[in-house]
Amino acid sequence: MYSNNSKSSLPTCNYYVEHIGSITNFSIFLHTNIKRFMPEDAVTVQIFLINGEHSRNFSKKAENLKSGKTALLVFTEGSGEILIAVISDILRRAGIEVSVCGLCDSEPTKCSKDVFIKPETSIYRASKYKYDVVVIPGGLEGAMTMAKNQTLGKYLEQHYKEGRLLAAICCGPLVLGANHIAAGCRLTSYPARKPDLEKIYKYVDDEIIVQDGKLLTSRGPGTAMKFALKISEIIAGDVKAREVAKDILMEDDTCCK
Amino acid sequence: MYSNNSKSSLPTCNYYVEHIGSITNFSIFLHTNIKRFMPEDAVTVQIFLINGEHSRNFSKKAENLKSGKTALLVFTEGSGEILIAVISDILRRAGIEVSVCGLCDSEPTKCSKDVFIKPETSIYRASKYKYDVVVIPGGLEGAMTMAKNQTLGKYLEQHYKEGRLLAAICCGPLVLGANHIAAGCRLTSYPARKPDLEKIYKYVDDEIIVQDGKLLTSRGPGTAMKFALKISEIIAGDVKAREVAKDILMEDDTCCK
Repeated sequence: MYSNNSKSSLPTCNYYVEHIGSITNFSIFLHTNIKRFMPEDAVTVQIFLINGEHSRNFSKKAENLKSGKTALLVFTEGSGEILIAVISDILRRAGIEVSVCGLCDSEPTKCSKDVFIKPETSIYRASKYKYDVVVIPGGLEGAMTMAKNQTLGKYLEQHYKEGRLLAAICCGPLVLGANHIAAGCRLTSYPARKPDLEKIYKYVDDEIIVQDGKLLTSRGPGTAMKFALKISEIIAGDVKAREVAKDILMEDDTCCK
Repeated sequence: MYSNNSKSSLPTCNYYVEHIGSITNFSIFLHTNIKRFMPEDAVTVQIFLINGEHSRNFSKKAENLKSGKTALLVFTEGSGEILIAVISDILRRAGIEVSVCGLCDSEPTKCSKDVFIKPETSIYRASKYKYDVVVIPGGLEGAMTMAKNQTLGKYLEQHYKEGRLLAAICCGPLVLGANHIAAGCRLTSYPARKPDLEKIYKYVDDEIIVQDGKLLTSRGPGTAMKFALKISEIIAGDVKAREVAKDILMEDDTCCK
């Protein structure tokens, strides 16, 4: 997932960092590739890009420290792009191997606010495997579609029965409710979904993240980062979760200014 | 962008809400489509889905109240998926028409943490138009690539010269720095990029969002929501921005618990 192949679109960048040693050569490179820069601009860009290259190599080493843990993040048309991006990104930063999974196929899928995200696998393939955590994002439309998917429903039921972490956010808990999974547990969701869920669950509306055993729920896009950090903490440990929080500038003193 | 066509994947859902009136009929529908549910489950799913349908219709009406404003969000391989998803989603909630734009083509593009996002247009096409705001996200790799793109550089320079809002977050300010845009202005970025940027700008490292005239900058994934809300406030007005903050549960008292 973090193989070198993924960065193959920057051959020129790798090339000059490896093969040149002087500003003169570097300027030639820049004048060939970015003709509009004046020499002094070339030096500026050089500084940016060489510093960037060092940071990139450092950052990739850090990411390679995998936790050996796995997550399945399921979504479909109408799911929330904020939730998908935030959760998969943060879990991957925590060294968790995340499968971003669609319901049917791997075509780019239109999310709730029209961003197209391409799933890496489908629930039909992913359901053959076990994951340390399964995450169900919201987006009302997406949750309504997922609530009707039998393969997903059966898979979630089995996953939860086997005592592994099940996490849902925003309208995602509707998918659990429709399948009567973890009925009677403490749970939260996007506030507008309370009337549907309080019939089945002990609904909590004054906490942004609610954990009841192996069920973890949260409320909406604005709470997605803290939710993803909580999943990271449970699966990869609190040291790693704190590192990630720092890395993305989510430390409380920064976030709440 | 919010046309009815985008929701065409749920014909059965539209069908039963329009065409059935009784729980009996509804249960028949559910037993046909979700055979594993017992009758009492069917009623539960029915409540979820009918309530959901009402919410969806309400939500779509609200989104149709466009501001008449436009935004261009440019990204490429290695850009941060959190930034792309958060900014495009929040701006669209604020009624701003957002073009999610790649550098070259409209193929799904691998972001910094391996989520594939499909751009809707390319900079070569988008640069023929003017937008109320152009947004440059971070992701070091993506910013390094964008810093070298001449079409983008010239476009950003012209956009800023014409007095329209230019917004960059995380490593995005590197793209402005490489093109000497707004040199001398107050600016912030992802903290690790300070040494590169402080040579050209008045670097600010104790504010999470910095505005200097038509230049707006911010620091990283953890500050992306507040950054997007600030863009919304400037472009679509503070009433709209506050509505969006409430909608996504980003009110300060909720966020900072």
